[in-house]
Amino acid sequence: MYKLLKKVKEINPLVLHYTNNVTITDCANTTLAIGASPLMSFSYEEVDDIVKVSSSVVINIGTMNSELLDLYVLAGKTANKYNKPVILDPVGVFATKARTDLTNKLLNEVKFDVIRGNISEIQFIGGLDVKGKGVDSFDDGSDASFIVKEVAKKLECVVVASGKTDVISDGDKIYKISNGTPKLKFITGTGCMSTSLIGSFLPCAEEKIDAAVMGTLVMSLCGELANRENPSIGSFKTRLFDEMFILNEDTCNKYGKIELAQLKFSL
Amino acid sequence: MYKLLKKVKEINPLVLHYTNNVTITDCANTTLAIGASPLMSFSYEEVDDIVKVSSSVVINIGTMNSELLDLYVLAGKTANKYNKPVILDPVGVFATKARTDLTNKLLNEVKFDVIRGNISEIQFIGGLDVKGKGVDSFDDGSDASFIVKEVAKKLECVVVASGKTDVISDGDKIYKISNGTPKLKFITGTGCMSTSLIGSFLPCAEEKIDAAVMGTLVMSLCGELANRENPSIGSFKTRLFDEMFILNEDTCNKYGKIELAQLKFSL
Amino acid sequence: MYKLLKKVKEINPLVLHYTNNVTITDCANTTLAIGASPLMSFSYEEVDDIVKVSSSVVINIGTMNSELLDLYVLAGKTANKYNKPVILDPVGVFATKARTDLTNKLLNEVKFDVIRGNISEIQFIGGLDVKGKGVDSFDDGSDASFIVKEVAKKLECVVVASGKTDVISDGDKIYKISNGTPKLKFITGTGCMSTSLIGSFLPCAEEKIDAAVMGTLVMSLCGELANRENPSIGSFKTRLFDEMFILNEDTCNKYGKIELAQLKFSL
Repeated sequence: MYKLLKKVKEINPLVLHYTNNVTITDCANTTLAIGASPLMSFSYEEVDDIVKVSSSVVINIGTMNSELLDLYVLAGKTANKYNKPVILDPVGVFATKARTDLTNKLLNEVKFDVIRGNISEIQFIGGLDVKGKGVDSFDDGSDASFIVKEVAKKLECVVVASGKTDVISDGDKIYKISNGTPKLKFITGTGCMSTSLIGSFLPCAEEKIDAAVMGTLVMSLCGELANRENPSIGSFKTRLFDEMFILNEDTCNKYGKIELAQLKFSL
Repeated sequence: MYKLLKKVKEINPLVLHYTNNVTITDCANTTLAIGASPLMSFSYEEVDDIVKVSSSVVINIGTMNSELLDLYVLAGKTANKYNKPVILDPVGVFATKARTDLTNKLLNEVKFDVIRGNISEIQFIGGLDVKGKGVDSFDDGSDASFIVKEVAKKLECVVVASGKTDVISDGDKIYKISNGTPKLKFITGTGCMSTSLIGSFLPCAEEKIDAAVMGTLVMSLCGELANRENPSIGSFKTRLFDEMFILNEDTCNKYGKIELAQLKFSL
Repeated sequence: MYKLLKKVKEINPLVLHYTNNVTITDCANTTLAIGASPLMSFSYEEVDDIVKVSSSVVINIGTMNSELLDLYVLAGKTANKYNKPVILDPVGVFATKARTDLTNKLLNEVKFDVIRGNISEIQFIGGLDVKGKGVDSFDDGSDASFIVKEVAKKLECVVVASGKTDVISDGDKIYKISNGTPKLKFITGTGCMSTSLIGSFLPCAEEKIDAAVMGTLVMSLCGELANRENPSIGSFKTRLFDEMFILNEDTCNKYGKIELAQLKFSL
């Protein structure tokens, strides 16, 4: 799976983003750092043209710009039309009725290949009660494997729940990643950037779940590596990009903590 | 007052921003660095839902997006409706009629708890002649105490004028902060970030003016500390966030230059 | 020409940007680093007021926000009305019909002083076949002098094609800059930032082409200098701003590789 790091640099996929205004620059730089090409658009006029030439499409509802709500849906449907892998980041889906409504509409009208959120977002999408504040997650560290797998089955796609332990499932297999550092929560956009990374790997992977695992791993592992000397938060962000740019298979082999998990109980 | 640094980390307030597209990422990261949670929205659909769960509301008219002008007003009124502390950053209010009109409308329809601007913006709001270029301030270093106090009285809120010396008044007390470095003017958004900091402290402070003083101090003091080795501007920005993240009471006690000022002449 | 570095700091021109959401912060910080003042607006209401007081106007169609398409045109026409130097960055003009249409409209209704793009964008504007992906350039290192000069003649303005070698022409003279580093392509916005730099120098230069050469040089040279110790990408971006902020005539004299070129064949 670590071979995807080389492959993304060879293929240099064009990752089209319909995303929020807060983390858009960092998402573009993340995509570049890993070896893909970002493209961001806020235009209805070019959806068809631009989705057609993209390698994958990222839809991130982060700032919920009123004039973009229909654009997210149109972009998702166009991605399906052209068989482009499409990934959803339902930022703060639990926070407001407007976010819930938009996410429902997206899930009903678009077939997503991957959905990535924090554990609160994924739980909400799965229909469970959710504790979360604003767009941030309530993460008590309990095992999210069951809910992630169930949501993946229900929505027939790969689901990623970022958290203390990241959990990824396609409804069958479950991967857990235990890399990371709490410091990642003190810079904005690490979730969005993970989504951009998954969008970068999706056009390169034979199995969608491999792309989701790699995208998630890159953020968590590079966060961990960036934090080795316990830098303060400005320096930490700089080093996070440093680590992403130089990450290779050897480093993943040495430090990556990916586990193919078994559910103890199956319903 | 320095205890607010600990309190904001305990309370972790949700600071809702209706803000500009230039400094939005830095404002989010500032809010996180100080221990609060940022939330940015550009959506009419979720105003009521989202203001209701926020701890404070920041309104910053920086890039004057046409489609957001009504949103700023709606957000401010909704903040009043739910008794959420609300703070205005009237970026470049003197620069165009559209900015003046919007600020007038906001001041007429919304009761603000704090207004923060550079000295040119505050002077303009106070009805005086203003020298300023674009959205930047003309600051000749002369004492702004009188005008800041008068504007605070007139608008019945706390007013902050950032400058060589920062001046904060609630119409009664006047604080002056003489920390800082000219280098802060060579990165975009330090004013906006101060406003986000005030928004972070407001839900934690018993006296509004304390939140305004602390938010202003954090930016000026961390700028001063970040500049100790005279780094160039890219490194300076990194260090500014480093300093904000690690700032504590001891450092404030040691380096903070806050003065409770007396007006020499009262009219 | 290097004297412009000092002059921009003396004049401190107000560089008004109508630009994209991805690189807007970096463009503002670039403008500040070089000694000018950035101003970004997304408002129809203030175009006339704000163009009138600006020193130059930058139009960058990067994210093609639907609601801004008319604003770009209005801003350009208003810049012409007030005789303000105006510069176009036709990001990804070849990528979609909507981008081509907008650029055509801009070129037909606005008289630009400078157009800056990557070689693919400039070739497309010149009516040639283009290889490019998304908004990135296909640059095989072949000499772009002829096409740049022809486009400059055709559009009666200064044209800049950024690439391995940067080429700048006013339809008569041709300058080539061979500073730079491939690493510049791994952070988003270096093209946009070059455009902002040109916008910063335009109000300070007697010859428009000098402003275009200097703006282009600053980015390529500072990229080269920032890369001296081969930092990874996060550190590289920090150093890029460090270098821009401290760049002076001596450094340009020592490291700048500007060549006034001759076309071997003239048609």
